[in-house]
Amino acid sequence: MFQVISVEEAISKVTANIDKYFEGLESEQIKSENALGRVLAQDIKAPSDLPPFSRSTVDGYVVKAKDTFGVSESLPAVLFNKGKIEMGEEPHKTLNQDETMEISTGGMLPSGGDAVVMLEDVETFDDNSIIVNKSVARGENVIEKGEDTQEGVTVLRKGHRLRSQDIGALAALGILEISVYHQPVIGIISTGDELIPPEKPLSGGKIRDINSWALSAAVTKLGGKPIQYGIIQDEPQYFRESFDKAVTQCDMVILSGGSSVGTRDLTAKTIDLGEPGIIFHGVSVKPGKPTIFGIVDNVPVFGLSGNPVSAMVTFDLFVKPAIYGISGVANFGRDWFENITKARLARNISSKGGREDFVRVSLKGEPGEFPEAFPVLGESGLIFTLVEADGLVRIPQNTEGYSQGEIIEVIKC
Amino acid sequence: MFQVISVEEAISKVTANIDKYFEGLESEQIKSENALGRVLAQDIKAPSDLPPFSRSTVDGYVVKAKDTFGVSESLPAVLFNKGKIEMGEEPHKTLNQDETMEISTGGMLPSGGDAVVMLEDVETFDDNSIIVNKSVARGENVIEKGEDTQEGVTVLRKGHRLRSQDIGALAALGILEISVYHQPVIGIISTGDELIPPEKPLSGGKIRDINSWALSAAVTKLGGKPIQYGIIQDEPQYFRESFDKAVTQCDMVILSGGSSVGTRDLTAKTIDLGEPGIIFHGVSVKPGKPTIFGIVDNVPVFGLSGNPVSAMVTFDLFVKPAIYGISGVANFGRDWFENITKARLARNISSKGGREDFVRVSLKGEPGEFPEAFPVLGESGLIFTLVEADGLVRIPQNTEGYSQGEIIEVIKC
Repeated sequence: MFQVISVEEAISKVTANIDKYFEGLESEQIKSENALGRVLAQDIKAPSDLPPFSRSTVDGYVVKAKDTFGVSESLPAVLFNKGKIEMGEEPHKTLNQDETMEISTGGMLPSGGDAVVMLEDVETFDDNSIIVNKSVARGENVIEKGEDTQEGVTVLRKGHRLRSQDIGALAALGILEISVYHQPVIGIISTGDELIPPEKPLSGGKIRDINSWALSAAVTKLGGKPIQYGIIQDEPQYFRESFDKAVTQCDMVILSGGSSVGTRDLTAKTIDLGEPGIIFHGVSVKPGKPTIFGIVDNVPVFGLSGNPVSAMVTFDLFVKPAIYGISGVANFGRDWFENITKARLARNISSKGGREDFVRVSLKGEPGEFPEAFPVLGESGLIFTLVEADGLVRIPQNTEGYSQGEIIEVIKC
Repeated sequence: MFQVISVEEAISKVTANIDKYFEGLESEQIKSENALGRVLAQDIKAPSDLPPFSRSTVDGYVVKAKDTFGVSESLPAVLFNKGKIEMGEEPHKTLNQDETMEISTGGMLPSGGDAVVMLEDVETFDDNSIIVNKSVARGENVIEKGEDTQEGVTVLRKGHRLRSQDIGALAALGILEISVYHQPVIGIISTGDELIPPEKPLSGGKIRDINSWALSAAVTKLGGKPIQYGIIQDEPQYFRESFDKAVTQCDMVILSGGSSVGTRDLTAKTIDLGEPGIIFHGVSVKPGKPTIFGIVDNVPVFGLSGNPVSAMVTFDLFVKPAIYGISGVANFGRDWFENITKARLARNISSKGGREDFVRVSLKGEPGEFPEAFPVLGESGLIFTLVEADGLVRIPQNTEGYSQGEIIEVIKC
C-alpha cells in the first residue's frame, strides 16, 4: 500500500519536480499580435523611449512654466502665440521666453516648452497673444518623453503569460515578433474495461468515457495541446504499449479511470516501471484520494481517479500547476487557487478531520451582493453534480466544516 | 455637452439595450468535443438514464439488502456465491434469496441485487459461499440507474457557456453535436491623426496605436472575433466611410482613441448620425469618463478613450457584458466583476467623491496568505502602469478610499 500525503505536500512534490524542466523548454518565434495567453521565452527590453516625445494630457497652451510663475487672475501674463501644433505633427518651432503655442491632448510639445496651461485658464488677448490666468509647474499636464518606459528597460520578463495589456505594450514599442515557449503536448489516456467512447452505442455493463473529453477541454483551457489516446483495456501488454507511445510523443501524460482494483494496480505498476517512477500515490483529499504522480523517462505522469468529479478536482489541484510549469510560466505554483469568489454559505457543510474536503456548490444571487452557495450533494462518480456546481469550497484538513451564513471562498469551476 | 451618469446606470443601459438582441442571434452546429467556451443555442435533454444501469461504488459482493438485515459479526449470514461480475460485462444471472456475486467498483449490478457489501466485511466460507459480517441498506454502495441524470431531464440550458465538465457531461450522454451561437464579430477602429500602426517607423509627433492590438486581444479572450479596421484619420468623410463599413460587417463596433477634441467630436457625431444613435456619453468613472455607448443601424457601438488604461477599464466595465450578451450568454450582466481576488492593501488609496475610481495595483506575496496590493501610480495614458498591474481596485462613488492594511477586492486584469 501507498503512504497518503497532504494536499500541500503533494503540491510541493509536483512543483519541486516540475521546476527541473524549465531549462530545457523549447521556444518558437511568433507574431506579437497573436500572442495572447502565450508564455514569453525571452525578456523584452524597450527599444526606445515611450512616449517618444513629451505630450500634452490636456487641450490648452504649451508654455515655459517659469513664464507663469506668480501668475493669477489678478496678475495674468500675456504670451505671444506662435500658432497651433497639429495632432501627429512635429512642431518645428522653439518656444522662447514669453511665447506659447496652442496644443491638443496628445500633441507633441515643441522644444523649449515644458508645461501646458489648460484651455479654461487662458483668454484671448489679441490675434497674436493670449492671457494666462494660472501658473503651472514644470511638467504639469505633460507626459514626459520616456515617462511610460525608457530605452533599455526590461518591461516584460521570461515566464510571463501575455495578457491583452501586454500585447498592447508590445504594439506601443513596435515589437512585432517575440519568442514564446511551445504549448505543451499533453497525452490523455482513459483506462478501464467498462468504458466505451462517446460515439459508440451503449451495451450491457459499459458506460461512456467522460474524462477523455473533459480533461482535453481542461488542458486546452490552460493553453496545452491535448492528444487523446482513447481507452486502454486492462491487459498489461497492450496497456504498456499505449502508455509508452504516449510518453514518447508527449510532454506530459494524464491517465484516468480504472475504477476496478485491477486497473488501478496496472496503472500504478506501469508508472512505477519508469525512472524514477512514482513520486507519490495517495493524497488525503476527498474526492481524489488515489491520485498518482510520477516521472517516466523524464515525462511527468499523473494517474487520476476515473470518477469525473475526482478527476476534475485533482486536475485543478495538481495537474494545473504542472501544466503551467512545463508551459514555462514563472512562479507556476502560485496561482493554484485562482478564480476565487466569495459567497454566503446557504447550508452547513461538515467534513471529517484528517483530510481536505472539496465540496461542490452552486451559486445563486443578485449582482452586488454575496451570492448564496448551495452545497451540491452526491457521489464523486456523478458528472452532473459538477455540471450543477459553479465552484468548489475547500475545507482544510483541520477544520470541521463551515456554518450556514458564513462568508466562504469558492473556487470557480 | 453630455450628461454624465453613474457606472451602475451605464451598465444598466448597456444590458437593457443588449437584451433585445437575444432573439435574433444566429447559431451553428458543432462537435461537442470542440465546444469549450462556446454558448449553447439549445437546451440539452438527457437522451437516456445516466448511469444506464446500477453500478457498485466499491469492491465487494452484491446482495439483496434484506438478506443482510440484522447481520453482524456475531450473527453473520452465509450467502451462495454465483460467481464474479466482470468489468464492462452484463451479468446474465439473477440474484435470488441468499445469493451473492463478486463485483468491482463500477461493475453492473445483476437483476435482483440492490446493495453491495464491502470486501472487508466479507469472509470466504467455502468454494461456493461467503460469510457477510455486516448489514447493508438497500442502495448502499450503489449508484442507481438514472441517479446522475434521467432520460428527458434538461441538463444544460440555452445561454450556458460550456466548461470542461459540461463537455464531459455531453460525452457521458453520447451527444456528439450541439447547436451553439455564432462567435460575434467585433470591429475595432482606432482614431486620431497622431497614431501610426505598430509596424511603421516613428516620426515626429506620432505614437504607435496600442488599442487595436490590445482590444483585439481582449475580444479574443471573451470568445469574440475581432476585425481590425486600422486607424481612421480625423477627416469626416473618410471617418464616416470606414465607420459605416465596420457597422455593416460586424455585430458590434469599438472605436477608441481620438484624444483631441476634434476626433472626440467626430466620433460622437458619427455615432449620433445612426438610429437611435448615442445612448449615453460620459460616465462618472476614472479613468474612462468620456465613454460613449450607442446603437447604429441595430449595431451596438462603443466609443472608448484613446488612453490605453481608460480603454481597458471601460472595456471590462461596459463592453465585456455587451459582448457576452451578443454571444448569447444568459444573465450576461451578472459576471461583470468576475476574477476577483482578495488582497491586503499595502498603502492608503484615496478617491474624490462623486465618481468611481479604479486604481491599478500590483500583487506580491506568498501562497496561502493574502497578497499585498501595491497601488501603481501614473496617468491613464501610460500602458506600462497596466503591464505592471495585476488588477484593479474599485472605489465606489461614495467612498473616500481605503486604508493601508484593509482587505480589499482586486479585479484581476
